Amino acid sequence: MSTYNTAFTSDNIAGVSPQVLEAMARCNVGQADPYGRDDYSIKAEKMLSDVFEKDVRVFFVTTGTAANCLSLSALTPPWGAVLCHHEGHINNDECGAPEFFNSGARVLTLDGTDSKVDPEALKWGVKYRVGDMHSSQPSTVSLTQATESGTIYTLDELCVLGAITKNAGLRMHMDGARFGNALVALNCSPAEMTWKCGVDVLSFGATKNGTMSAEAIVVFDKTIAQEMSFRRKRSGHLGSKMRFMAAQMLGYLENDLWLRNARQANAMAAMLKSGLEKLPEISLIGSPEANIIFCKMPTYCIDKLLAQGFRFYHDRWEPNVVRFVTSFATTEQDIQHFLSAVNQAVGYAQAV
Amino acid sequence: MSTYNTAFTSDNIAGVSPQVLEAMARCNVGQADPYGRDDYSIKAEKMLSDVFEKDVRVFFVTTGTAANCLSLSALTPPWGAVLCHHEGHINNDECGAPEFFNSGARVLTLDGTDSKVDPEALKWGVKYRVGDMHSSQPSTVSLTQATESGTIYTLDELCVLGAITKNAGLRMHMDGARFGNALVALNCSPAEMTWKCGVDVLSFGATKNGTMSAEAIVVFDKTIAQEMSFRRKRSGHLGSKMRFMAAQMLGYLENDLWLRNARQANAMAAMLKSGLEKLPEISLIGSPEANIIFCKMPTYCIDKLLAQGFRFYHDRWEPNVVRFVTSFATTEQDIQHFLSAVNQAVGYAQAV
Amino acid sequence: MSTYNTAFTSDNIAGVSPQVLEAMARCNVGQADPYGRDDYSIKAEKMLSDVFEKDVRVFFVTTGTAANCLSLSALTPPWGAVLCHHEGHINNDECGAPEFFNSGARVLTLDGTDSKVDPEALKWGVKYRVGDMHSSQPSTVSLTQATESGTIYTLDELCVLGAITKNAGLRMHMDGARFGNALVALNCSPAEMTWKCGVDVLSFGATKNGTMSAEAIVVFDKTIAQEMSFRRKRSGHLGSKMRFMAAQMLGYLENDLWLRNARQANAMAAMLKSGLEKLPEISLIGSPEANIIFCKMPTYCIDKLLAQGFRFYHDRWEPNVVRFVTSFATTEQDIQHFLSAVNQAVGYAQAV
Amino acid sequence: MSTYNTAFTSDNIAGVSPQVLEAMARCNVGQADPYGRDDYSIKAEKMLSDVFEKDVRVFFVTTGTAANCLSLSALTPPWGAVLCHHEGHINNDECGAPEFFNSGARVLTLDGTDSKVDPEALKWGVKYRVGDMHSSQPSTVSLTQATESGTIYTLDELCVLGAITKNAGLRMHMDGARFGNALVALNCSPAEMTWKCGVDVLSFGATKNGTMSAEAIVVFDKTIAQEMSFRRKRSGHLGSKMRFMAAQMLGYLENDLWLRNARQANAMAAMLKSGLEKLPEISLIGSPEANIIFCKMPTYCIDKLLAQGFRFYHDRWEPNVVRFVTSFATTEQDIQHFLSAVNQAVGYAQAV
Repeated sequence: MSTYNTAFTSDNIAGVSPQVLEAMARCNVGQADPYGRDDYSIKAEKMLSDVFEKDVRVFFVTTGTAANCLSLSALTPPWGAVLCHHEGHINNDECGAPEFFNSGARVLTLDGTDSKVDPEALKWGVKYRVGDMHSSQPSTVSLTQATESGTIYTLDELCVLGAITKNAGLRMHMDGARFGNALVALNCSPAEMTWKCGVDVLSFGATKNGTMSAEAIVVFDKTIAQEMSFRRKRSGHLGSKMRFMAAQMLGYLENDLWLRNARQANAMAAMLKSGLEKLPEISLIGSPEANIIFCKMPTYCIDKLLAQGFRFYHDRWEPNVVRFVTSFATTEQDIQHFLSAVNQAVGYAQAV
Repeated sequence: MSTYNTAFTSDNIAGVSPQVLEAMARCNVGQADPYGRDDYSIKAEKMLSDVFEKDVRVFFVTTGTAANCLSLSALTPPWGAVLCHHEGHINNDECGAPEFFNSGARVLTLDGTDSKVDPEALKWGVKYRVGDMHSSQPSTVSLTQATESGTIYTLDELCVLGAITKNAGLRMHMDGARFGNALVALNCSPAEMTWKCGVDVLSFGATKNGTMSAEAIVVFDKTIAQEMSFRRKRSGHLGSKMRFMAAQMLGYLENDLWLRNARQANAMAAMLKSGLEKLPEISLIGSPEANIIFCKMPTYCIDKLLAQGFRFYHDRWEPNVVRFVTSFATTEQDIQHFLSAVNQAVGYAQAV
Repeated sequence: MSTYNTAFTSDNIAGVSPQVLEAMARCNVGQADPYGRDDYSIKAEKMLSDVFEKDVRVFFVTTGTAANCLSLSALTPPWGAVLCHHEGHINNDECGAPEFFNSGARVLTLDGTDSKVDPEALKWGVKYRVGDMHSSQPSTVSLTQATESGTIYTLDELCVLGAITKNAGLRMHMDGARFGNALVALNCSPAEMTWKCGVDVLSFGATKNGTMSAEAIVVFDKTIAQEMSFRRKRSGHLGSKMRFMAAQMLGYLENDLWLRNARQANAMAAMLKSGLEKLPEISLIGSPEANIIFCKMPTYCIDKLLAQGFRFYHDRWEPNVVRFVTSFATTEQDIQHFLSAVNQAVGYAQAV
Repeated sequence: MSTYNTAFTSDNIAGVSPQVLEAMARCNVGQADPYGRDDYSIKAEKMLSDVFEKDVRVFFVTTGTAANCLSLSALTPPWGAVLCHHEGHINNDECGAPEFFNSGARVLTLDGTDSKVDPEALKWGVKYRVGDMHSSQPSTVSLTQATESGTIYTLDELCVLGAITKNAGLRMHMDGARFGNALVALNCSPAEMTWKCGVDVLSFGATKNGTMSAEAIVVFDKTIAQEMSFRRKRSGHLGSKMRFMAAQMLGYLENDLWLRNARQANAMAAMLKSGLEKLPEISLIGSPEANIIFCKMPTYCIDKLLAQGFRFYHDRWEPNVVRFVTSFATTEQDIQHFLSAVNQAVGYAQAV
């Protein structure tokens, strides 16, 4: 009996890409100025400017929470509201961090199918009680790309939302915890998916896709760059040995590792999806495009898989709804092995 | 002519101990639960419990600012005051972070020679306007060990300050950014230097002494452990791939690497001090015991050294005052080379 | 043609009861200690203790926002969540004040008919992601009595909600901006409507019902009294000439002025309701019990009334929904005059 | 034996000028829009614009703490520092309110004789660690006029400090808790003492000089007016029945009541000073110019006065240092009576 137990709980359970670890080891030579004044940090900022085809300012932090909340606090006054989809990570999974970083700015949630903000909802949101001093003022729109459920805004959708945002005089943030997964799925350029659609600040996630603990706040609108440096410091996110964060980013970007990693994660999700949709007992939910799959699965099947040591989130959103997340480290063998177990669990193995 | 340019600006310009990097590489195998629920994190907490001879709760963060400010925010109400020496890092170099983390708690500074809080000053401070609702209320005492100027509280001094603190009903925090350097200088146990003197929470610094970006908040008073976990999350300091922070700590603690590293840093400072005090043009300030040396140096000498590419802070505190910081990575050769340059600079080389 | 233009926009457009103004004038004699140490303040606290049949601690502030947010900040840690009905004033009309006062605590909204929190919703809410460090922790339940739509929790309803709150280990706050209106409608004692049901802290509103700018934070759970005094000061709500706030409260409580005022407001709403429900063109919404009435009214009727100078909120919640609020200062003549205008507006005058 | 017990502890122990109370009563007629949209509020803003010879925006609040901290929070980013004299009220008596209102901005204290900021100290302060991300950035200068010890900046002194402030790119706030007392002493115009010297926002204190609880934030730089309205609301300082605050201000300004009140307070202090300086046992400290006097007095004298029921602060700053504060309500008889008691206490009565 198998004791193999691949988990699909999240992409943050993977380790680190070997190339990233090597880059970190490579920079462990001699002395380097602290706090981002080292050559590696300068080079990483330059490299991200190249990636985004724009002269950007980059602030490394170690978590997505920090990247998102620092970005939002620089874009939003304390009496402001951040508009996001009600499934947004900043709305559900930050233990009040956005409110803390900004001394009380509120999150105003919007609806939309496939976890994507609906343009009509946004049009309502950007005007919500504007000028009414009894209500937090719409200030910033935050979009997650890819979304928390694995769907992806098309470039057209992003540009429509960006235009609504900018016409209303608001600022735009992108939570790119899974930026790479979205990018390779859309097969577009990083510039097209960000500032060309109106994004002012991007949380450029890398940890889920191969680094150890390096997220980059990529600032397209440089008017907020200086305050970002003070905000990062006073929230305890200015690392001293910054070269190692920069090295992670360099290893991540060099030779398109990040794109290859994202493609692998997405491909493994597609392979899993393809296997699952053949099973009538299992029904896929929505149209997953990146590395996250939601589906409905019978309880006896969930139980059998758990009993074999597989791990994934289930019955958290609705009864019998399960979520599978793949990562750069997921292999074809992992998927085959798991699909085989699912097949067995739903009783198909015998039939074949 | 030499182009060798060892810097003595800080101990954060060093890289990472090879053993730490190896421990990180070693844990990069397979999947691991995120957010500190992995085996490495559990092991590291256990190991720190052994080190401190007490069942402690450990919270990893990546910066000393985070370790200090999270600790202080858990110990101090928003209307409270944190008492520390006026040279304290939390008073001078955090860009308002302690106030931010705690929504406005103030720092009340105390005097004392050799950068150490004077017991009489503390006795005054713990009673400062207690009960007066127009003034922030003394709540927490924060001591830096080793201090910002490289001096070290003796165990007796710590216990006296701890008793004053506890008798007044206040809590005690230790900023241990250079904890190892102090410990090996005192040649005592970690327990003696902390909870046995009354310390409730310790910022156990490791980054300056060999890790990459791993500081541990060591909680001796477990009543605040639960809130610490929420506070860490909402400030963006809950890392997902926590195993790599734990691995750093494991590599740091195993085989007493941390003590060996600290001894090396201290020994190099002692060697430097010994060389400098032979030179009448140079006068040492205070009585450095760890890995920081302050001295007065003639301007022409400072200029010569800088011109040769040596780097250190000077003329920042007072005219002609310079600071040298050694680290675990400083070698005897570094010191000899530098002393030789200092000798030349003050004109002694010719005489010898 | 009439130029009479009684407004029904809110009960805060009324002036001050003459008895309150007289009490203020009466205390304007000689010197008095500031900050609540005067005789009037002490007497007012005593009088409220009598009113509530309990030895309470009282903190005067000048606005309901301050009363609510100070109360909530004392009951809720920064990583906590305040549970309230989604129509709650603290959720909709405070411009982020609850989040500001508490450095980021979030509001978690609950459903329920007639603007009252549903017990089943509360049972779900008090357990919402308890122990999950990624989510704000349920800490405080805040109920508005009378509610924002003029309905009133029965004592049984309050006690059920109180029991759920307390069994889950949470604290309970009551927003009593219209406390008097609810009390006289229920015809119960202040004690029954508060601490006997589990209320820990009450925002005892008085401004809408006859005072000028005096709200009392009534603290039943004295363990938070001391911190309240620091919280009030640091938010700028500790008035120096406190005797005048106390005098307002004395004038308000003496000879049951507050109860008489509340009865007048409620009676005027009942009279208005009685007149409106006779008109088939107008349909009442819900079952108003205090001094607020919601109804649906045809647009031509709204327009006619506005044209005559009557003022009220309309088309704010849904098309054709209007709100009328009466106050202690509303007279029978005001209501008769207005009803007559409504009759005319809907075309009944001619018919009669 | 006398039971007469005039207190000189502060000017906030006085009641309210009758004219102010009358103005409040006069406006208690009919309905009025809440939150400052009433005619009285509009008129009061207009009247202050006339007083200051500039089109100002006015925000009423009920305490000086609120006026100061809202002003500072609008002028200073969270990573900023507010520069003030070390004796400044915002530094000593606000229980962390400035830090709370601004989510952590720090106070950087400056020295200077007679409680006035020294220009050289300010020149140092405005440059303190500018650009260093480890330190709060100098942002706002706050001057108290009259100072906490009763001295007064001359117009020349104000203009020199204003020029230093503005040349460095900082903003300027004036804490005018005793603005009237300073103004009549200088015999200049309100414009000269404020915006003509560079003041951007003024806390125009009125409570100590005759109103009940009305302070005006007078905004000269209108770019911050909009955010002030949100900041006031979210800190709980937007009063609903604002007309009564406006009425206080109208009563205070009409017929120059405020100037007459301030002259009376100052004259009474001068009379007291004149009487005290004749007594060799008593030595005046500094050069009081407004309504506060500090002097040294023998312990036996202090004790005798206290025993007779007189009240004043003593031995709070240094042994035998006492403070006397007069107000608009202090009469010549009060001073004569008290001076006679002091004479007796020091033993002169018999001699004369």
